[in-house]
Amino acid sequence: MTRKKLFSQLKGFAHGGDYNPEQWLEYPDILEQDIALMKKASINCVSLGIFSWSFYEPEENLFQFDWMEQIIDRLYENGIYVVLATPSGARPAWLDAKYPEAMRVDSYGVRNHHGNRHNHCMSSEKYRELVRRIDTRVAERFANHPAVLMWHISNEFGGYCYCDKCKERFQSYLRKKFDNRIELLNHAWWTGFWSHRYNSFEQIEPPYSNGETSILALNIEWRRFSTWNATDFMKMEIDTVKPFRPELPVTTNFMMMQVFDDYDYQKMALSLDVISWDSYPLFHNDFESLEDTFLLNAFNHSMFRAMKQDRPFMMMESAPGLVNWAAVNKYRRPGIHELAGIQAVACGSDTVQYFQIRKGRGAFEQYHGAVIDHAGTDTTRIFKEVAGLGQGLNRISEVSGSLHRNKVAVIFDTECRWAIDDAKALSEKNKKYMDTCVGIWKELMKLGVEADVIGKDNDFSSYKAVFAPMLYMVSDELGDRIRQYVKNGGHFWTTYFTGYVDENLLCHLGGFPGAGLTEVFGIISEEIDAFYPSDRNHVHWNADGNCSEVVDYAEYIHATTAEVLGIYTDDYVKDQPAVTVNHYGAGIAYYVACRMEPRDMHRFLEQVCTDAGVPVKKNLDGIEYHVRYGNDCAYEFYLNTGNSDRQLSDLDGIDLKNSQKVSKTMTLKPREYLILKKGIG
Amino acid sequence: MTRKKLFSQLKGFAHGGDYNPEQWLEYPDILEQDIALMKKASINCVSLGIFSWSFYEPEENLFQFDWMEQIIDRLYENGIYVVLATPSGARPAWLDAKYPEAMRVDSYGVRNHHGNRHNHCMSSEKYRELVRRIDTRVAERFANHPAVLMWHISNEFGGYCYCDKCKERFQSYLRKKFDNRIELLNHAWWTGFWSHRYNSFEQIEPPYSNGETSILALNIEWRRFSTWNATDFMKMEIDTVKPFRPELPVTTNFMMMQVFDDYDYQKMALSLDVISWDSYPLFHNDFESLEDTFLLNAFNHSMFRAMKQDRPFMMMESAPGLVNWAAVNKYRRPGIHELAGIQAVACGSDTVQYFQIRKGRGAFEQYHGAVIDHAGTDTTRIFKEVAGLGQGLNRISEVSGSLHRNKVAVIFDTECRWAIDDAKALSEKNKKYMDTCVGIWKELMKLGVEADVIGKDNDFSSYKAVFAPMLYMVSDELGDRIRQYVKNGGHFWTTYFTGYVDENLLCHLGGFPGAGLTEVFGIISEEIDAFYPSDRNHVHWNADGNCSEVVDYAEYIHATTAEVLGIYTDDYVKDQPAVTVNHYGAGIAYYVACRMEPRDMHRFLEQVCTDAGVPVKKNLDGIEYHVRYGNDCAYEFYLNTGNSDRQLSDLDGIDLKNSQKVSKTMTLKPREYLILKKGIG
Amino acid sequence: MTRKKLFSQLKGFAHGGDYNPEQWLEYPDILEQDIALMKKASINCVSLGIFSWSFYEPEENLFQFDWMEQIIDRLYENGIYVVLATPSGARPAWLDAKYPEAMRVDSYGVRNHHGNRHNHCMSSEKYRELVRRIDTRVAERFANHPAVLMWHISNEFGGYCYCDKCKERFQSYLRKKFDNRIELLNHAWWTGFWSHRYNSFEQIEPPYSNGETSILALNIEWRRFSTWNATDFMKMEIDTVKPFRPELPVTTNFMMMQVFDDYDYQKMALSLDVISWDSYPLFHNDFESLEDTFLLNAFNHSMFRAMKQDRPFMMMESAPGLVNWAAVNKYRRPGIHELAGIQAVACGSDTVQYFQIRKGRGAFEQYHGAVIDHAGTDTTRIFKEVAGLGQGLNRISEVSGSLHRNKVAVIFDTECRWAIDDAKALSEKNKKYMDTCVGIWKELMKLGVEADVIGKDNDFSSYKAVFAPMLYMVSDELGDRIRQYVKNGGHFWTTYFTGYVDENLLCHLGGFPGAGLTEVFGIISEEIDAFYPSDRNHVHWNADGNCSEVVDYAEYIHATTAEVLGIYTDDYVKDQPAVTVNHYGAGIAYYVACRMEPRDMHRFLEQVCTDAGVPVKKNLDGIEYHVRYGNDCAYEFYLNTGNSDRQLSDLDGIDLKNSQKVSKTMTLKPREYLILKKGIG
Repeated sequence: MTRKKLFSQLKGFAHGGDYNPEQWLEYPDILEQDIALMKKASINCVSLGIFSWSFYEPEENLFQFDWMEQIIDRLYENGIYVVLATPSGARPAWLDAKYPEAMRVDSYGVRNHHGNRHNHCMSSEKYRELVRRIDTRVAERFANHPAVLMWHISNEFGGYCYCDKCKERFQSYLRKKFDNRIELLNHAWWTGFWSHRYNSFEQIEPPYSNGETSILALNIEWRRFSTWNATDFMKMEIDTVKPFRPELPVTTNFMMMQVFDDYDYQKMALSLDVISWDSYPLFHNDFESLEDTFLLNAFNHSMFRAMKQDRPFMMMESAPGLVNWAAVNKYRRPGIHELAGIQAVACGSDTVQYFQIRKGRGAFEQYHGAVIDHAGTDTTRIFKEVAGLGQGLNRISEVSGSLHRNKVAVIFDTECRWAIDDAKALSEKNKKYMDTCVGIWKELMKLGVEADVIGKDNDFSSYKAVFAPMLYMVSDELGDRIRQYVKNGGHFWTTYFTGYVDENLLCHLGGFPGAGLTEVFGIISEEIDAFYPSDRNHVHWNADGNCSEVVDYAEYIHATTAEVLGIYTDDYVKDQPAVTVNHYGAGIAYYVACRMEPRDMHRFLEQVCTDAGVPVKKNLDGIEYHVRYGNDCAYEFYLNTGNSDRQLSDLDGIDLKNSQKVSKTMTLKPREYLILKKGIG
Repeated sequence: MTRKKLFSQLKGFAHGGDYNPEQWLEYPDILEQDIALMKKASINCVSLGIFSWSFYEPEENLFQFDWMEQIIDRLYENGIYVVLATPSGARPAWLDAKYPEAMRVDSYGVRNHHGNRHNHCMSSEKYRELVRRIDTRVAERFANHPAVLMWHISNEFGGYCYCDKCKERFQSYLRKKFDNRIELLNHAWWTGFWSHRYNSFEQIEPPYSNGETSILALNIEWRRFSTWNATDFMKMEIDTVKPFRPELPVTTNFMMMQVFDDYDYQKMALSLDVISWDSYPLFHNDFESLEDTFLLNAFNHSMFRAMKQDRPFMMMESAPGLVNWAAVNKYRRPGIHELAGIQAVACGSDTVQYFQIRKGRGAFEQYHGAVIDHAGTDTTRIFKEVAGLGQGLNRISEVSGSLHRNKVAVIFDTECRWAIDDAKALSEKNKKYMDTCVGIWKELMKLGVEADVIGKDNDFSSYKAVFAPMLYMVSDELGDRIRQYVKNGGHFWTTYFTGYVDENLLCHLGGFPGAGLTEVFGIISEEIDAFYPSDRNHVHWNADGNCSEVVDYAEYIHATTAEVLGIYTDDYVKDQPAVTVNHYGAGIAYYVACRMEPRDMHRFLEQVCTDAGVPVKKNLDGIEYHVRYGNDCAYEFYLNTGNSDRQLSDLDGIDLKNSQKVSKTMTLKPREYLILKKGIG
Repeated sequence: MTRKKLFSQLKGFAHGGDYNPEQWLEYPDILEQDIALMKKASINCVSLGIFSWSFYEPEENLFQFDWMEQIIDRLYENGIYVVLATPSGARPAWLDAKYPEAMRVDSYGVRNHHGNRHNHCMSSEKYRELVRRIDTRVAERFANHPAVLMWHISNEFGGYCYCDKCKERFQSYLRKKFDNRIELLNHAWWTGFWSHRYNSFEQIEPPYSNGETSILALNIEWRRFSTWNATDFMKMEIDTVKPFRPELPVTTNFMMMQVFDDYDYQKMALSLDVISWDSYPLFHNDFESLEDTFLLNAFNHSMFRAMKQDRPFMMMESAPGLVNWAAVNKYRRPGIHELAGIQAVACGSDTVQYFQIRKGRGAFEQYHGAVIDHAGTDTTRIFKEVAGLGQGLNRISEVSGSLHRNKVAVIFDTECRWAIDDAKALSEKNKKYMDTCVGIWKELMKLGVEADVIGKDNDFSSYKAVFAPMLYMVSDELGDRIRQYVKNGGHFWTTYFTGYVDENLLCHLGGFPGAGLTEVFGIISEEIDAFYPSDRNHVHWNADGNCSEVVDYAEYIHATTAEVLGIYTDDYVKDQPAVTVNHYGAGIAYYVACRMEPRDMHRFLEQVCTDAGVPVKKNLDGIEYHVRYGNDCAYEFYLNTGNSDRQLSDLDGIDLKNSQKVSKTMTLKPREYLILKKGIG
């Protein structure tokens, strides 16, 4: 892969964020002041129009765009570009009053009242018609304005609607999927259970909270449908605006994995030109270390980056200062703002964008962090930190357009997540699929190994090693791909609760992991036991005689062809295999039958990487490490995300901040970072 | 009482469980394989047809029974009998689509959507008509098949419906109960309170969650009505199938007390021939010892057994391996399966049945334990343990048909439970009526005294001692029975919160405990104080000077004729009576005015038993002990339900497992048990 | 202010409570017995008719008042007066059946079923008509009965209705408030946010739970409207009954601040002649000391007293013995009953009234404490304590009519409470506005300084010092008043989170605290940081070098003209100001930028009082201290609300209980109190 710039108009990175001038039309002085302040903060790009519908079209079919044109003109005159949104994220009051079908119906079948946002029915033809109309008008007016860089389609797509139109579209979707043969659906969904057989597609309803919730395949199909339906809606918007200036790229802002799993972003990503997401890590919390907060954020970056590996992604939103919706709304301490911005870049973002440029005076988000506070000055700590980062980004602008070249992947799959969360198995409150994937990914980071985070449907054949914890759902197709991958020399690492079900959540017959994987891994899993917190067991590692504690889950497995790397020390599975390795074809397949804390697998993971030919980096000493590649150079990022001084050694290259050659060693104080440019072969 | 066999067709015990062949009709090999595996596991009986409606009647009025006949024939050819269900537990999709009135309405008055199970309206004439039709067809076809042992009516009856039909039936029920005189209801329900007087029965609604919840007598009457209505529905089904082969006994599977209190099983039991229940103890949890898990299960056994004391009961369901709906789904450790099966027998069951024979591939219960796992083999640990128990049951088949002859009863009454749970008194989250009853029962078990668990309406005149903790609801009729019982020499033991209200939840006037009991117990209770966890008080036992801690509740009582056995040590009730005994007529009445941990009353309870002429068994050393009686012999069961070796002494009789005479002493390892046969006079 | 007696008919205090004879009409013996028992308990006043509607009007337009007249006559013959209620607090069943619009609609738009109480729609014309009719009939019949002392309008007004009529009235209310100009509302509510602009008042809906909840100004306006609507309803009732005997005062019983904030009582109070409230402290709990329970109750007394400072208030309800709706329903220990009654008097009440005289036999409140228990005797502990207090009140009757003359006020404002609770800021679960106000008030009490508790809209110009913690909402008008107050010599004390928003919840521009207060306090606040429980910081007090811990919140502020009294010791705000004082005009303005435990500000608060010329009282040694003033004398109340003996010193005056001159010192045992009469200048 070679460099790829997102926007030719910009010299380097985009720096800016959501701006809501429509809230300030009665305050012309403030609108002028804002532009001056933006320039002081090295802001070169703002996102406009996300919530402008009721200003664009204050009454049905009465359109007003002049106010926005003046804003865009003034911004452009001042060197500030625009990410232009379609305004479908929130509906004007008149729209809901006239067309109630635009409002969503909840999981009990009750239609919402007007209010809030992001809650339209994506099946409503009328709403689609109104969106097409306003999108068309916006595009006609602004698509060709030179300030406009790209399209921001709607805002943070999410949620489900259970209205009759959605029900009908769901039925159509199912008819198509099952070739209009209800008996195929009955088998795939195992409806013989509890006498749940359907006679026709008309009988199928969404999984109403007071309806059918026991057919797990229905539940997951509903989420697949909702992903498809939201994507279909999004594509309708894209198809509406794209023709007005085909070269303008489109994106929509995704949400972070900790809070969102309504849709399968892997699927939605296919319809976008650029991936962007909204990054809201909760710094300085009391449930994890600061390093872990940064790493969780980097995990998200890695996932969104990996959706389009041939180009940078965008950090579309982040909070200057603080958010206002957390349990505890805590300010970022000095230096965190810059470090988080640089982390985004280190992970492959070519933008650092905020929600929001200026705090609105009233309503829900009046205390959400912003570049410009209610005081309206450039003297606040936060403003100064934003401005400092803006200057910093200018200094390293050559990094923009460079890309990642990772050799390892971690599979974190939305369908697996849905399936595991909904599985009537394990411990209700302790399934922790995401935590498990994040944990493995973070432990690899501590080895200096940055993994791409991909879905199970992504091609993983080019990676040297693939880590796929709790790969619960394995279709025959995926089983084949894994077998081929290992056969051809790949190293594949998985755990307990892998290969239990196929794509319809039907259990594989003949032993777990199914879909041919018992052969690949050389084991058969017979039971999976769930632990109460007080339960105890350990894995004894044959290699070094050390022990690691088992938590939450322990499978009782039998090794067929696999070699045993670790055994249980206690309980009824004492001396049975707990960790195995199987040489299969030219590759290697690892099976970890129980849950352990990732730190207790550190040496094991290091060995796995080394054996796969993936270099690990010793002596990182707590530093978060990333690399982006230009055509003939590498940019190494060393971030001190912790609270102690850290020592770097064996450094070689140019410090990008001051263009000086670095000496071999360096100390990074807390919040400090080093960007090292090195030539590569 | 003499021996009573449930099924002449079986030599000894029934061993088997729920089997769902309809899920596997497309897999004929598996259907054949299942029978082979059942035989390997000594299974002689399966429950069929519980969820078969959509296969019996795939479209309205289109009936298909051949597939089931083939299954039953094949089973019978292989020596496997059938418990045949009526399929009313879950409705086909076509039925709800065509007759929405079959679906329940929730406590907010909203009708459910189709889905799940056990959620039909029991008042719907249409649904009753459809059930009668399918039951008739099933009975016509299969009642006289020689494989069929009995009827399993519907499945796990439960729940409430708040539809208009139910409302009308409720009003009719009330009209009848109150002789069509609304003024009688107004007085009984004390509707003068908060101006709640009714003018007519038409005004009375169910206790909607967003309606009338403050009339406690309405609340309890609604639960009585729902019991009556469910029983009426069940009797409709019984009346439908019974004529086809009148000698076939009927049962329905009840649920365990920890999770179910929708209906008053004491009342429903009257309409059944045999009592059966579904036993799902949560072994190896972290909130109680393994012994306590077993004892709580035995408490349930004792309650269901006591509903029909002249015959064995059935453990209709239990989990091979694990359940899949618990907070933590944990496997039974080796040996637990057999011990739990033997416990059922020890408590009076003549069956050991499972849910389920084979795991379904998909949907809600795909991970619920089963005899045959997804792997489909006889090599799993669980399969082998099931098969081992099957052989074990064959060895002790002579025990089947023997009965209990207990001399002590504990009253655990569903109406008291409802009334206490709904009482606006005490501590909201600390009422613990069931825990209190279970606690006393378990403490008696530790004395080797197995008590029957009965309701307040049961005849208790033949017991030597009756323990009735928190007997909150005492009608005049019950007050009379207690007085007669004690007068005639019975020993009656009760506690705080006894005799506060009559059958309509009206407080007794003139002092608690009412209905004449102040005289029987020789005390008057003036106040009941609730404790915060940090509150402290103790009972000083006059007999030995020891002290026991008071928890949760302390009544301030006055002794009139009673002798004081213990006094409070602290607070404003210092030196006031805490435990009393009153000699009344030829009997004795004990009153315990405060809550103590049962273990802190061990010596007191021992004395009470001894004084009542009930022999206690010293040196049980943690062994769970039960006795069944044949005509001229006793079968003593000694179960080591703990995790340590236990020593038995003073043994005398034949070890039924090996037909050897036992020596006087024996060591039982964890999970081991001894069944000792002794001649009796 | 001079003395003001509430009721000329009574010699001293009113002693009595709610009585529900309608529940006992079938028990004439009990009705007679009740009167005898009341007389024994020195009860001179009962509240009647609160829930009598279904007895007054058993069917629509059929009226029956004779039964009540007999009761009132019998009471009057026995020297017992009557507080007469309008019966609108609960509706007869026939009313809801015939006029469903009288039943409330919940926040999801679903109409309730009939039941419970206090849940009528206050907008329903039909319900208002029916209430006017029954109120008229009651007033015609009883207003001029010589037993009747006053009107008790309805009962414990509260709650919201979301029906269409309420929606329309809300819209009318808004039209009036915003001069029928939707653009004014759009600006005030900042509806430009999220495209929420309204085109017309018809589009505005209540904040349905499944509707618009993101416009905070809508939310608070809904609560203002609901206050206005309830007041309008109450005034309708007052206007109905008042003409029949204009001199009869009217009250309604308010609820305590811990549990109620539906309405703004400050506003409702304006329409009443006398303030009364229902006092239900949870004595002997495990989350606060007994002293604190008493103090929280006194805080409530002080707030209700301050609503009408020229006359005594009434403690309309309190619990003899215990309540029945708490998490733990605990009996008042011996002596608590009398002490709580005397506390009410000490705080300015001229009544000690109970819910209830006799326990009802059934339904929701059958276990709520009462003077007469189910036993119906005068021998219970509770009865004897009530009777003892009755005699005690007779001995101190000269205190009645005396008043408070406090020099200090604490602002605890309902609108601030609403605004803070709904603010999307700070820590979701840790806002604690009320706790903070109560904490300051209690700490002042420990200095012997009893403060009036007032709202922000009350005139505070006559106080020497005003403490206004977290005065979040400051309109320009309030900002002006504070500035004038300080300029003219007042001492004003406030904290973090003050002056952020105006009356529409719009943030002040130009720096916090807004509305001109940055000048008054001489500081600007830039950030407010929220703490996790594990976060640590301290304030170093410059005056004495001591440190106090910071909890929950710390603002980052800049002193402009203010002097710094304390600085932060840690974190990014180290050495920045934490506590400041600003001399402004003739007065002083204090700003406390972070939350500290009130006890950690004790010395600071003492200094503030002293500097304001408010005398503090040393050596109170844990005694709760109040003073009422007659024309030429003061009544000092010393209450030992703790569990240890307390020493009083420097006493001077007459002990009112025995009319003896006190010696200089005295010991008060737990539960004891001293009322000291002193001449004043």
